[in-house]
Amino acid sequence: MKDQSWQARADAHSFYGFTDLPTIHDRGAVVVTHGEGPYIFDTEGRKYLDANSGLWNMVAGFDHPGLIAAAQAQYARFPGYHAFFGRMSDQTVMLSEKLIEVSPFGDGKVFYTNSGSEANDTMVKMLWFLHAAEGKPQKRKILTRKNAYHGVTAVSASMTGKPYNSVFGLPLPGFLHLTCPHYWRGGQPGETEEQFTQRLANELEATIIKEGADTIAGFFAEPVMGAGGVITPPKGYFQAVAKILKKYDVPLISDEVICGFGRTGNTWGCETYDFQPDAIISSKNLTAGFFPMGAVILGPELSARLQAASEAIEEFPHGFTASGHPVGCAIALKAIDVVMNEGLAENVRRLSPRLEAGLAQIAQNPNIGELRGVGYMWALEAVKDRESKTPFDGSLSVSERIANACTDQGLICRPLGQSVVLCPPFVLTEPQMDEMFEKLETALKKVFAEVG
Amino acid sequence: MKDQSWQARADAHSFYGFTDLPTIHDRGAVVVTHGEGPYIFDTEGRKYLDANSGLWNMVAGFDHPGLIAAAQAQYARFPGYHAFFGRMSDQTVMLSEKLIEVSPFGDGKVFYTNSGSEANDTMVKMLWFLHAAEGKPQKRKILTRKNAYHGVTAVSASMTGKPYNSVFGLPLPGFLHLTCPHYWRGGQPGETEEQFTQRLANELEATIIKEGADTIAGFFAEPVMGAGGVITPPKGYFQAVAKILKKYDVPLISDEVICGFGRTGNTWGCETYDFQPDAIISSKNLTAGFFPMGAVILGPELSARLQAASEAIEEFPHGFTASGHPVGCAIALKAIDVVMNEGLAENVRRLSPRLEAGLAQIAQNPNIGELRGVGYMWALEAVKDRESKTPFDGSLSVSERIANACTDQGLICRPLGQSVVLCPPFVLTEPQMDEMFEKLETALKKVFAEVG
Repeated sequence: MKDQSWQARADAHSFYGFTDLPTIHDRGAVVVTHGEGPYIFDTEGRKYLDANSGLWNMVAGFDHPGLIAAAQAQYARFPGYHAFFGRMSDQTVMLSEKLIEVSPFGDGKVFYTNSGSEANDTMVKMLWFLHAAEGKPQKRKILTRKNAYHGVTAVSASMTGKPYNSVFGLPLPGFLHLTCPHYWRGGQPGETEEQFTQRLANELEATIIKEGADTIAGFFAEPVMGAGGVITPPKGYFQAVAKILKKYDVPLISDEVICGFGRTGNTWGCETYDFQPDAIISSKNLTAGFFPMGAVILGPELSARLQAASEAIEEFPHGFTASGHPVGCAIALKAIDVVMNEGLAENVRRLSPRLEAGLAQIAQNPNIGELRGVGYMWALEAVKDRESKTPFDGSLSVSERIANACTDQGLICRPLGQSVVLCPPFVLTEPQMDEMFEKLETALKKVFAEVG
Repeated sequence: MKDQSWQARADAHSFYGFTDLPTIHDRGAVVVTHGEGPYIFDTEGRKYLDANSGLWNMVAGFDHPGLIAAAQAQYARFPGYHAFFGRMSDQTVMLSEKLIEVSPFGDGKVFYTNSGSEANDTMVKMLWFLHAAEGKPQKRKILTRKNAYHGVTAVSASMTGKPYNSVFGLPLPGFLHLTCPHYWRGGQPGETEEQFTQRLANELEATIIKEGADTIAGFFAEPVMGAGGVITPPKGYFQAVAKILKKYDVPLISDEVICGFGRTGNTWGCETYDFQPDAIISSKNLTAGFFPMGAVILGPELSARLQAASEAIEEFPHGFTASGHPVGCAIALKAIDVVMNEGLAENVRRLSPRLEAGLAQIAQNPNIGELRGVGYMWALEAVKDRESKTPFDGSLSVSERIANACTDQGLICRPLGQSVVLCPPFVLTEPQMDEMFEKLETALKKVFAEVG
């Protein structure tokens, strides 16, 4: 007889992505039916506090009434259109105005995609187009950092500095990965944080000189690396980098897919770390996860240059069918309002010291090597020995064990390398935060007792 | 004083894609507020019959009550989740079952994306991954055809066989474009349709032999080329191609982004042209344009091989944040039902002879060189001289003129090369079809009187 459990049905026809297959074979898929605030519920009646906010993005929780109403109202009003041929919905026009208004730019233009991957991929195409139009067709190389995450299209995966992309034969040629700006792990013996920053700045300049500035199309960076394991930049990093990029005429693109709209406590990560990019890549929180959407937000200089390049050939030949979808734009308008004006960003600012203090308490466990983060994005890195920063043996899958031990108690957090990441929804209440601390601590103690 | 018209507001902050900029400067953006059946309405109170179905995708029209209700209900139930880490929504599980059920495959697996571009890009990554895992890391070249359209990410744009991609420095190396299968334009003097097919089959085989079969990752084809200008394949084309691909162990991927779910009169274009692909790329009609979604539908053989390759490294390291979004899946489940069981595909089958007959009448105009199409996708190609198939001078922008003359009368159709494309929503009634014929004929006569 055919197994009709939800787990068997999921297995039968899902080609699982970013899923540890041994874990799935062992534990089965979790099939989720609905949510309440920061909680989700599965087909077996289990309840989980999702300290991962879905995938960083469900910042308003899983049943926000205002966002549901905004989506429903726009479906009733106008449920779909595109933005080709100079036609677009009124919602699209209004969202572009709003994005420029809340951006760090005084003026600029917006291009919509369906994801952060597509937005980064689009930005690369824009840079290739721009430099060729300005007489530099060889200005095509893209600089990112090891451990960066910029997406999964072949080009955005090439920007992503993760070793797993080698199974696809990626990165493509011309995508260069600089040193990961992680002082705790990457600093040399005796090196101060400022010296570490200077070493990375020197590496950037040396790379530009070696490759030739006229071959470098752009530099992309997340203000805080998200899927790299919540890597906050060392002191002065973006100031040092921005200065060199300006010197060599290399655009600086801030990938704010995770940081944008409140995650670091400000609207943008570039605000938190006080630098001015040439363009911003946005997604995730942009719609609070209620709709697939990405946006390239071009500052005034790139806007003007790209517009001139497009006018010269009468068209910018690029666009996605659902670019600027009216429902996505209506949801984004509401999500921006909810995050910025209905207390969500305020929650992050008000409660992030409490979050940090609670995690710092947990991080006193001798098997936690580093607590790092900002705002509502934090990671605890497990170590076998704190003093020497020695990691656990990879075969122990320590972070997967911690995540599974959390799941068993009804807490979802994310294993990344040997770290566990916590990036809760902005609607998390203080009692819910305490629940998270308690379950996390229990899981850590259990796992470290097994492997420590 | 700042111009606060919708047109000025659109111009201020939109970086327009796939938009003829001289036309925009001349006529202004069209800002759309709502729709009714196949009609859309703009901020100036103008009404247009959208014979373009949005972008081929709004097949159920712009206010389908069942689809609106399905979207609203799912927003109320569970407004967002992902499909990573073996967790996914119940809607996602159900849609995968449905897609395999309605696919030409007896079994298989589904992977979700947010667009057709991402689905093609994903399929390329899957093939690169698969061949490398099977010991052929050099089996990476992708074969498509000139004039094909597969999307706009850097890789899917590389697959797209359009000259405009050169402005981005695309295609990337390793993307090869074979002859466009357009008999009327590409057939040589005296060559029969069968001989034309044989010549293209010979070219495919010669290319595989020249490049080396062990360097060819896959062959992607739209059953009918959509954005290439509705190019139906010549007789026996897919049978001849499939035979050669099988001989040299090159997977055949059917890009059904436009053809899938009813456009050609059957569920799939590969049904209409009677061939069996190894995988199907779906998007657009999949949600009737109500949500950004793409799907890679893997047949049983590719599923099994890709699953084995993933098990070997414990994970397929790929996925988009909104892959398998519960709202998109709920909408797709409803859209498939609406198209297949509520009379939409039936409309296409029943009324496409009427559509063809009406267009054939219009195509008697001596400045129409070819009427081509199938189901609810048709193109009329303008010529200066029908006998010699001489096109109009490019500087006359004849198809843009026709499209603009149609727009002036409240009919939206799409200029592509020197053709005008008509791909109406499946909900079009017979009187609405007559309205389309009348407005199109008026526009053609006006423009040919000016340029003929």
